[in-house]
Amino acid sequence: MDLLNKDMSAEFKPVNKLEKENKMVQNISELFDKLEIKDGATLSFHHHLRNGDYVLNMVFEEVKRRGIKDITLVASSIFPCHEPIVPLIKDGTIKNVIVSYMSGPVAEAISHGDLKGTLVMQSHGGRARAIMEGSIKIDVAFIGAPSTDIHGNISATEGKAFCGTLGYAIADSIMAEKTVAITDTILPLEGKTEIPSERIDYILKVDSIGDPNGIISGTTRITKDPVGLRIAQKAVEVMVATGLVKEGMCYQSGAGGVSLAVTKFLGDYMEREGIKGKFASGGVTGDLCDMKNRGLFDRIYDVQCFDLKSAEDIKNDPRHITMSAEKYASPYKDAIVNSLDFVILGATEVDTDFNVNVTTGHDGVIMGGSGGHQDTAYGAKVSIIVSKLFQSRIPLIVDRVGVISTPGSTVDVLVTERGVAVNENRTDIIEALKAHNIEVMTIKELKELSDSLTGVPQKKRDESKRVIGYMEYRDGQVLDKIYKA
Amino acid sequence: MDLLNKDMSAEFKPVNKLEKENKMVQNISELFDKLEIKDGATLSFHHHLRNGDYVLNMVFEEVKRRGIKDITLVASSIFPCHEPIVPLIKDGTIKNVIVSYMSGPVAEAISHGDLKGTLVMQSHGGRARAIMEGSIKIDVAFIGAPSTDIHGNISATEGKAFCGTLGYAIADSIMAEKTVAITDTILPLEGKTEIPSERIDYILKVDSIGDPNGIISGTTRITKDPVGLRIAQKAVEVMVATGLVKEGMCYQSGAGGVSLAVTKFLGDYMEREGIKGKFASGGVTGDLCDMKNRGLFDRIYDVQCFDLKSAEDIKNDPRHITMSAEKYASPYKDAIVNSLDFVILGATEVDTDFNVNVTTGHDGVIMGGSGGHQDTAYGAKVSIIVSKLFQSRIPLIVDRVGVISTPGSTVDVLVTERGVAVNENRTDIIEALKAHNIEVMTIKELKELSDSLTGVPQKKRDESKRVIGYMEYRDGQVLDKIYKA
Repeated sequence: MDLLNKDMSAEFKPVNKLEKENKMVQNISELFDKLEIKDGATLSFHHHLRNGDYVLNMVFEEVKRRGIKDITLVASSIFPCHEPIVPLIKDGTIKNVIVSYMSGPVAEAISHGDLKGTLVMQSHGGRARAIMEGSIKIDVAFIGAPSTDIHGNISATEGKAFCGTLGYAIADSIMAEKTVAITDTILPLEGKTEIPSERIDYILKVDSIGDPNGIISGTTRITKDPVGLRIAQKAVEVMVATGLVKEGMCYQSGAGGVSLAVTKFLGDYMEREGIKGKFASGGVTGDLCDMKNRGLFDRIYDVQCFDLKSAEDIKNDPRHITMSAEKYASPYKDAIVNSLDFVILGATEVDTDFNVNVTTGHDGVIMGGSGGHQDTAYGAKVSIIVSKLFQSRIPLIVDRVGVISTPGSTVDVLVTERGVAVNENRTDIIEALKAHNIEVMTIKELKELSDSLTGVPQKKRDESKRVIGYMEYRDGQVLDKIYKA
Repeated sequence: MDLLNKDMSAEFKPVNKLEKENKMVQNISELFDKLEIKDGATLSFHHHLRNGDYVLNMVFEEVKRRGIKDITLVASSIFPCHEPIVPLIKDGTIKNVIVSYMSGPVAEAISHGDLKGTLVMQSHGGRARAIMEGSIKIDVAFIGAPSTDIHGNISATEGKAFCGTLGYAIADSIMAEKTVAITDTILPLEGKTEIPSERIDYILKVDSIGDPNGIISGTTRITKDPVGLRIAQKAVEVMVATGLVKEGMCYQSGAGGVSLAVTKFLGDYMEREGIKGKFASGGVTGDLCDMKNRGLFDRIYDVQCFDLKSAEDIKNDPRHITMSAEKYASPYKDAIVNSLDFVILGATEVDTDFNVNVTTGHDGVIMGGSGGHQDTAYGAKVSIIVSKLFQSRIPLIVDRVGVISTPGSTVDVLVTERGVAVNENRTDIIEALKAHNIEVMTIKELKELSDSLTGVPQKKRDESKRVIGYMEYRDGQVLDKIYKA
């Protein structure tokens, strides 16, 4: 270490304490002057404002205005609201994209081959790992900050566009060369602090960082479809049969309509049986907060809020605990996901090795991504995929999924309306289910049943097309290539 | 970035989710086996258990047992309780020491030349900067954790040796290759979390991490000496004269007896005048908590507790806010110290350029260090040194201080029982004091007065002796050499 071998005779240059700078900048142009963003820079963003986010577009408007090129965009997620950056992908302003989830026009443009560089899709935990270990080197992290004091202590429970937690922005704020808070609300004193001032270099006040109503994304409502509800009920039966639905259980579900129905039915069961869980985690809905408030879980660990009710709950209840993506899901250091008894997840495709695709749709176009899918499937004692066997006669189970988002070695159970399949390496689960008179099929049997009803699905993945990027596993391995749609 | 140029054809190695490790290790030997600490390693420690700490000695007992050599010890502070490591300094087990404050047998041994390598003394903010920027590379950070859950979410308000905050350990926990929680209290669920689980690699449970009573160090009681009290009263007069004792003021004092008396008298004044401050910060005493609770400050920012009453207060009042050393005092990113209106500090020696020594005693032996002295003197609008002009006929003001701990360009006012001197670059303060009929002397005049009473002091610093290390300024510059005593 250099400081042990310093030239001690170097003359000390006295400091002038009367010339202190503060962090506030007046406008985005002054901010960019200070940041000195150059061609090829890596800029990062978080997605807690989800489809209501104004920050990413605002920053890229200035990037474009200045003619900066070859940007690597590191966004935890990209939503339909980010359509304005599509032309910047096409013209090479944005060269590479590293993202955990994307849907809407940007995802479509990239799927169709408009990105000049590489697309890397990661899990939420993998993203945090990559940033913390330095595999991703961020030049500037832009934090959409619901509120901050003048020092840059950022709170997500105060402000016009409060979003409760900033879990996906924590690693960025620690590791970026420079971190900027963009906010519409300056508080005289810090509120409940999600990102402390020592992580923030500059603060830019703007009129609005986002539309609070955009926080509610389309995937976060319980299904009303009777088939979906039947699947959810079956999933709860499976869970109970494993013997893990008991005092102190830890639980997470995805935000799909069937997964949310499982959560509801599980809650009803726990209430009936007088079972209290230790924690529920994840992206969090108001319904999950209600379950905590009814005493069904001692606490919630929350990396992002799926609705405003959940964001409100963080403000009001210290047992609703915010967490970083690392704490939630990092592949190192025994993350929260490793304590899960169950995770309930969706899928657009599953193959007979239980590999799951949640990244591309049946047309091969990107419409999602792993998010926490990989992380929770690995971490949970029992990972359960809930899905209909067909959607508009398009089958779930295929020979080769479009993109492997989560490897089959970490997926334990598939519950459909026509049967339950269990990964054959989980003999413990197979036995438990049989002991509870739940019929267990192999996934090949389930596929044969499916094929007999709809015909063998055509292979959708066209490997003659150009590789536009890859799906990374949470530990950094290449999990699968992503082809142009 | 490598992940943009990955070999996408590399075969994916499936993970086995049934083979998870947890963080708990059974004993210190297993811990060291996992850590693989080698000769020349850098080990870090924090000092929130102050003179009651058992952790540092415990770790070095095992280092010694294993015959590991040439360790660089990075400790935020070293206290008399750490005497057991003196032989390890002498035999080369510990080669270099990087520290912000030290007193007792270790300090004496190093002063007398027993360290084979280099001594680097830093401010609290400088230490955090050095760790975060990578100037100090820590192999293993050992966190004395008052309590933790099984994931490594560390709380400092629960546990047998609760110490309230862990502000000096935060940077270590973020940047160390490996971070270990050593604790005597495992909680079923996390309490108020100071260090989150994603920062912790291993957890070792031991019988006791420290003696809670050792948290109260000798320097944290208000002086009863009438001369000291007179100085404190004068300091408050000076503060009032600057016009900055007003609604919203921000304040910190050191932990010396006279400084604490200033805090008390200031509180009395504020109460009388109905003035409410914005915050008080620092190492925090129970008396300061009382002032907050009486409404004299809206909140407290706390990087370490000087007594158990203060540690209790953190548990009970959300307006008593813990902070990292970076947030407190980092030279970058507009730290809390930069908001201070006043800081009240002590000194063992001052020269006529206002350079201050708080590192060595009159015998040239190390008995302290900058701690936050450098940081707050720089940050505060007005930094005030309070000290008697003589201590047992040994004068305060000298031609050359033993070690420059804080540069004079950041020291504004010296208040003694025989007069007040103001740094001549602070004409604003000189004018304000004169306008309030406070007699202002130059520091040279004050020295002449002192010399006339005690005789010109002998030069204590012997530059013919060996240089054993240096005092670093918070920005990384060499501020002064430290000579063997």
